[in-house]
Amino acid sequence: MRISEDQLASFSSTDFHVRSLDLLRERFSKQPMDFEEIIRNIQEFQIAIPSAALGNGRANAKRSRTGGEPRNLAEKLEDIGLLQQLTCKTNSVSVYIPWDLPDDFQEVKDLANELCLKFDTMNSTSSQDENQKAYAKLGSLGNSNKAIRDEAIAHNEDVISIGKKLGSKGLTVWMADGSNFPGQSKFRSTLRWTEESLREIYEFMPSDWDLMLEYKPYEPNCYHTVVPDWGTSSMLAKRLGSRAKVLVDLGQHLPKTNVEQIVATLMHQNLLAGFHFNDSKYGDDDLNPSSIKPYQLFLIFCELISGDMDKAQAWESISWMIDASYNTQDPLVDLIQALETITIAYAKAMLVDRERLNECQLNGECSQAQEILQMAYLTDVRPLVCEARVRSGGAAEPLEAYRILMIRNKLVQERGVKSYSSIF
Amino acid sequence: MRISEDQLASFSSTDFHVRSLDLLRERFSKQPMDFEEIIRNIQEFQIAIPSAALGNGRANAKRSRTGGEPRNLAEKLEDIGLLQQLTCKTNSVSVYIPWDLPDDFQEVKDLANELCLKFDTMNSTSSQDENQKAYAKLGSLGNSNKAIRDEAIAHNEDVISIGKKLGSKGLTVWMADGSNFPGQSKFRSTLRWTEESLREIYEFMPSDWDLMLEYKPYEPNCYHTVVPDWGTSSMLAKRLGSRAKVLVDLGQHLPKTNVEQIVATLMHQNLLAGFHFNDSKYGDDDLNPSSIKPYQLFLIFCELISGDMDKAQAWESISWMIDASYNTQDPLVDLIQALETITIAYAKAMLVDRERLNECQLNGECSQAQEILQMAYLTDVRPLVCEARVRSGGAAEPLEAYRILMIRNKLVQERGVKSYSSIF
Amino acid sequence: MRISEDQLASFSSTDFHVRSLDLLRERFSKQPMDFEEIIRNIQEFQIAIPSAALGNGRANAKRSRTGGEPRNLAEKLEDIGLLQQLTCKTNSVSVYIPWDLPDDFQEVKDLANELCLKFDTMNSTSSQDENQKAYAKLGSLGNSNKAIRDEAIAHNEDVISIGKKLGSKGLTVWMADGSNFPGQSKFRSTLRWTEESLREIYEFMPSDWDLMLEYKPYEPNCYHTVVPDWGTSSMLAKRLGSRAKVLVDLGQHLPKTNVEQIVATLMHQNLLAGFHFNDSKYGDDDLNPSSIKPYQLFLIFCELISGDMDKAQAWESISWMIDASYNTQDPLVDLIQALETITIAYAKAMLVDRERLNECQLNGECSQAQEILQMAYLTDVRPLVCEARVRSGGAAEPLEAYRILMIRNKLVQERGVKSYSSIF
Amino acid sequence: MRISEDQLASFSSTDFHVRSLDLLRERFSKQPMDFEEIIRNIQEFQIAIPSAALGNGRANAKRSRTGGEPRNLAEKLEDIGLLQQLTCKTNSVSVYIPWDLPDDFQEVKDLANELCLKFDTMNSTSSQDENQKAYAKLGSLGNSNKAIRDEAIAHNEDVISIGKKLGSKGLTVWMADGSNFPGQSKFRSTLRWTEESLREIYEFMPSDWDLMLEYKPYEPNCYHTVVPDWGTSSMLAKRLGSRAKVLVDLGQHLPKTNVEQIVATLMHQNLLAGFHFNDSKYGDDDLNPSSIKPYQLFLIFCELISGDMDKAQAWESISWMIDASYNTQDPLVDLIQALETITIAYAKAMLVDRERLNECQLNGECSQAQEILQMAYLTDVRPLVCEARVRSGGAAEPLEAYRILMIRNKLVQERGVKSYSSIF
Repeated sequence: MRISEDQLASFSSTDFHVRSLDLLRERFSKQPMDFEEIIRNIQEFQIAIPSAALGNGRANAKRSRTGGEPRNLAEKLEDIGLLQQLTCKTNSVSVYIPWDLPDDFQEVKDLANELCLKFDTMNSTSSQDENQKAYAKLGSLGNSNKAIRDEAIAHNEDVISIGKKLGSKGLTVWMADGSNFPGQSKFRSTLRWTEESLREIYEFMPSDWDLMLEYKPYEPNCYHTVVPDWGTSSMLAKRLGSRAKVLVDLGQHLPKTNVEQIVATLMHQNLLAGFHFNDSKYGDDDLNPSSIKPYQLFLIFCELISGDMDKAQAWESISWMIDASYNTQDPLVDLIQALETITIAYAKAMLVDRERLNECQLNGECSQAQEILQMAYLTDVRPLVCEARVRSGGAAEPLEAYRILMIRNKLVQERGVKSYSSIF
Repeated sequence: MRISEDQLASFSSTDFHVRSLDLLRERFSKQPMDFEEIIRNIQEFQIAIPSAALGNGRANAKRSRTGGEPRNLAEKLEDIGLLQQLTCKTNSVSVYIPWDLPDDFQEVKDLANELCLKFDTMNSTSSQDENQKAYAKLGSLGNSNKAIRDEAIAHNEDVISIGKKLGSKGLTVWMADGSNFPGQSKFRSTLRWTEESLREIYEFMPSDWDLMLEYKPYEPNCYHTVVPDWGTSSMLAKRLGSRAKVLVDLGQHLPKTNVEQIVATLMHQNLLAGFHFNDSKYGDDDLNPSSIKPYQLFLIFCELISGDMDKAQAWESISWMIDASYNTQDPLVDLIQALETITIAYAKAMLVDRERLNECQLNGECSQAQEILQMAYLTDVRPLVCEARVRSGGAAEPLEAYRILMIRNKLVQERGVKSYSSIF
Repeated sequence: MRISEDQLASFSSTDFHVRSLDLLRERFSKQPMDFEEIIRNIQEFQIAIPSAALGNGRANAKRSRTGGEPRNLAEKLEDIGLLQQLTCKTNSVSVYIPWDLPDDFQEVKDLANELCLKFDTMNSTSSQDENQKAYAKLGSLGNSNKAIRDEAIAHNEDVISIGKKLGSKGLTVWMADGSNFPGQSKFRSTLRWTEESLREIYEFMPSDWDLMLEYKPYEPNCYHTVVPDWGTSSMLAKRLGSRAKVLVDLGQHLPKTNVEQIVATLMHQNLLAGFHFNDSKYGDDDLNPSSIKPYQLFLIFCELISGDMDKAQAWESISWMIDASYNTQDPLVDLIQALETITIAYAKAMLVDRERLNECQLNGECSQAQEILQMAYLTDVRPLVCEARVRSGGAAEPLEAYRILMIRNKLVQERGVKSYSSIF
Repeated sequence: MRISEDQLASFSSTDFHVRSLDLLRERFSKQPMDFEEIIRNIQEFQIAIPSAALGNGRANAKRSRTGGEPRNLAEKLEDIGLLQQLTCKTNSVSVYIPWDLPDDFQEVKDLANELCLKFDTMNSTSSQDENQKAYAKLGSLGNSNKAIRDEAIAHNEDVISIGKKLGSKGLTVWMADGSNFPGQSKFRSTLRWTEESLREIYEFMPSDWDLMLEYKPYEPNCYHTVVPDWGTSSMLAKRLGSRAKVLVDLGQHLPKTNVEQIVATLMHQNLLAGFHFNDSKYGDDDLNPSSIKPYQLFLIFCELISGDMDKAQAWESISWMIDASYNTQDPLVDLIQALETITIAYAKAMLVDRERLNECQLNGECSQAQEILQMAYLTDVRPLVCEARVRSGGAAEPLEAYRILMIRNKLVQERGVKSYSSIF
């Protein structure tokens, strides 16, 4: 289904919104703040949706179900198209293979074109394919058995080939490889095999593709993970070549990690591939972005803007993707919330008075630095985000529109109550 | 004071010890285990004592006091000499400047020679010199103010010059630099300044010296530390040159970090400088080695032996130093315990059946791998450690000897009850 | 020094503020929100300042210094008086003994009266008095030595006696007691001795006083702390009697603790004594409130309001105190920021649509619950907080007023650059 | 299958074992250590096996499979019977309902009798029965919907009824109840409903049964768990009555928790129900006991012995159960290892010189306390454990016997390669 332009138009801006925006401009009138540029930046900021996030699926079939889930990649594109119509914040899909292998490539590409959607980074799934049994014990790309490594490499090469057909320009590699007990795995050998496998994949990649290497401290393995931290990920990326970079999944860090500092350190080396946005309280919880630590997300965007301004690493070189999936309710509602909260963090970070902050940092005026950040963070930027959305043709209040238009009901009617998205 | 050879001789081996050793050999008779080599390895294994660890000092004057503390570097050498006579496990001192700046270099060197002690790595103290006020706000080597950075560099160069006179061959750099609040410090700038400062120090170093760069996630700063993890430390070390490496202080990691994996990853890159041995339950607690997580220390030594055997990084290239100081009692007792427990971990790790373990690792036989490690870990290796000590001329039971000889009493008589070691 | 009424009047409300407040009212016009009541609640909400927080003191003399620090309790009252004039958010001081023992009680009480300040909870300092040496090894109220326990009890009784003279109505007990190594202390004995000591103190307390028992997982002890968690603290409080309750210091929890849930669980049992407000990233960092986890503070206030509304525990029975002290700059600036951010969290929590939230909670509508919280949290409540302050006679923008009035300069003139607050 | 007595006899004690035991006795000859009593204690110490642990099952069907898994409760009893023959360390099974609901009670009881096995605590499975959909959102015993709570209560009552038929004397309750996002659940209401539900179950229990209430900080819920810590668990247990106690699962604590202190604090209140033994590095990893933190398990047993000696809580009142299941290989091998390592920790703890330790604790002699613990911990107690096993009729080396007898092969022959245990 598609939302008609008339329908969308009926959810456009309000007088209240206009006055809120005026007041916000007034609040910052003494600072050299270009609101038009900020709004343009918000408009241009687009976050990819993973093809795996549109159902209630993930772990197992025991979850409560919303109904009307997309049953294949085409229907997932449709769902993302709806999100884009409402929010204007997502123009691409990040496809997981083998779960979302399209039957008919041309059909899927045509549909994407029609919906103005692009194919973002491809995702291989080394932890969960037909070889899972062998993988579970000794890993995929880092397996001690060359034959199994070769299969894992071949899977990644397949994903690249599929991605080429779709028009993707990158591959995200996350490996579940690791061990559960001391002694089970030889750290250095596993690392070496992993590097060799990654090199084959890297060399197979088209020259305009990027390889994004994720890290994660634990889970599903409980003692050791082959690529546990940004240090290991960047060590491998540097050895592969300049098109290999480090992907940051916000939930995949040890307790108390200063994630914004890692972001800055990666940009310092031009090594930041991009983000998997989510939030977490305990481990890799995959909760909705900003649902637990919204201030951290703001601080991360402060680093991103600062790194771009200082030409450490260009904004355009960074990928943005949602990777949250604890959907206990309608996943489209969760995704609308996620797109909104990420954008809010970005918008707030643009309100930081960078010139004054730099001065404070040089002079050690830490109370003032604190004040400058608070001034931006405490500001209600929803009028800015709303303005950008309305200018791009979206709904002023996407969640409200989603509910009034009864989109879920219509999807259930179209697809049935028991339609399940292809899951793992 | 010195212990006479006669005195020492009276604490040598016993019949019980001999029989224990025989039984231990018998237990491993089916494995290709060269006990003579193991004993030689234990004999050769020597751990440096930091000059700051010989008093009850550290934080403040409120600690309970043992009395008879060494009042200067010469007396500290004497104390280490006593430790060496009893344990034969420490042939060197690691000097902290400015706290242990010698008055008369020749005198100190002569004394060291007499006691058969060497001067291990020098330690600068960037967090706590005359510039502490400026440092507290904006750091030392990473300060935004060039003049303060230059002072911090000059301090390190002074330490190198002192070390050259003493015959040391390395410099350990730990920086307290960081910030307490978001916004206070600019991560990338601080990193850049730190790198520039380290480069000046590195270039000032004699060509046969090594620079050992410590990392620490937090404390004394509560939001950000300039070199928080092995990733940052190794990034800087690689940029400096091949004589810069990463020092691992066991207590300086985020909760749940797999430290033995970091050790393996550093050896994989020939980047491991060495260790500050201690133990911790919560943060950088500086508790006695093995007092909380003895199995972790064993696993670390397993990695060290494995890395050496595979020629990833040579055993001889690694530095060993104690850095524990929660001495609520006699620091010499604590140090004897520390030297013993570290050696025990090393000895146990040498009992691992490496050949069989490699097979298990290749084949994913994880229960057997677990068994092999347990077989070594559960073995009581005190007979081995004792044998090595006795062969080297030390006491069979150093703590017993220390008490029977009433060494602390004699030190109190010599130096007084209120003798305080130079502290910070 | 005092700020004149004319001076204060010149910092009152602005046209921009009025329009902001109107817009905020409009935003919530569809919800049954009584803004007048919210403003009254904000006005009535008063946070105590610890007497130890007004200098740059805490740890040691190496900190950078602001100058003009209050040199005794009278000058500290003056400083709090200034804070109250500007912010109208603090009408009381929480005195630490022995550090702030007044010379002349009547003088100090008269001054407090003149400044409209009250004496909040008294604080004993069991970790750091003349007996520190004995305490360091085996603790104070839980020491194995009855004589030392008696001294610690006597100290607490002294503090109560002093508090009675000042008009305080409560005693906060925090014990540094614990141990650094396994085996050093016998957990159950220490707990029993501690309970016995607390009982003596509890029985010594006037019948209209409350005993507030803090908990802390670690530090200064590195292995075990006698009262490490809310469970132990509430076990002891329940055994003492109904006037003993549990004090929550926000920074004193293990990593990942759900602090807002503890608050709810304590209120469920009518056991919440109150708060020490601060923030932390790693341990008991004592950073300014909301400088790291502002959303957590908001969630805590949500629980407080909910618990009060449901009559689990009355709002009035809860104590509020700042306990942050990482002042690298002017402590009065830090305190103004702290009072503001705490109030902001409270104001945001009052904007939660409780009725609708309750419905969502009953029906498991978790996306909507999330939305309701975000609606409140994302709102800029500074107009509300400002309005409350102006109505109470404070400055619209306290920090701005503080700077324009050059208060620190005047304090330095009055008290000198090298005036140090009595510190520990 | 059963192992014949002849077969077992062929794996009995050796000369090497006898000499090892003699040497061990000699080592402790100066201490008042009653080795006969220690051996008897080891013989009497029996650990229950959960019915869910005998297959490779747990999470999903993707695990590698050993083959020959028990297909029903009867075959599980057979497996435990084999374990008992070899190790003499497990005389009971802890049954999970509905997974191991027997078809024919009398048959199962007869078989248990024949194998000399008892039925330990019953386990309800509130997270995973037919109502899982409703539970996933709002919980079971704490659900906001009375009808669902009633179903969950009824399930527990069913489990009790089944347990009565089997001869069990206790019920373990673990609730997955909690929430994933702030706002989703009302903490205090959920706690109240949970208490009401538990009270119904408690009152339904026969008067000679115990209720064991587990706690767990997170997972499967990522924001809040209804019973997250020992404080909440003991609050509920105390309100229910004296037959309700707190069950400690070693892996279910926040990072850095001092678990041995919790054990002591529970014994101090006579509130310790017992243990789920396992080990963990990150979260509730369910790894084999002692595979990560063997020293912690030793310290826990030190507390258990101390609490029993001081008559805080009697040893006999405590339940012991394995709850580890990361079996990547043969689960019977894992269980033999688990039974052995738990017993080793217990045996080491019995070697602590308690009298001398008490003195050190009273006098603050912490280095000596450390020494006393090390003296026991470093001792190789395998001869003691082996002696106890042989005296009880088990194999000297159970793992060796298991392999030589090729038990797994025989089970595969009997039951088939694709026999799966009933799993969840």
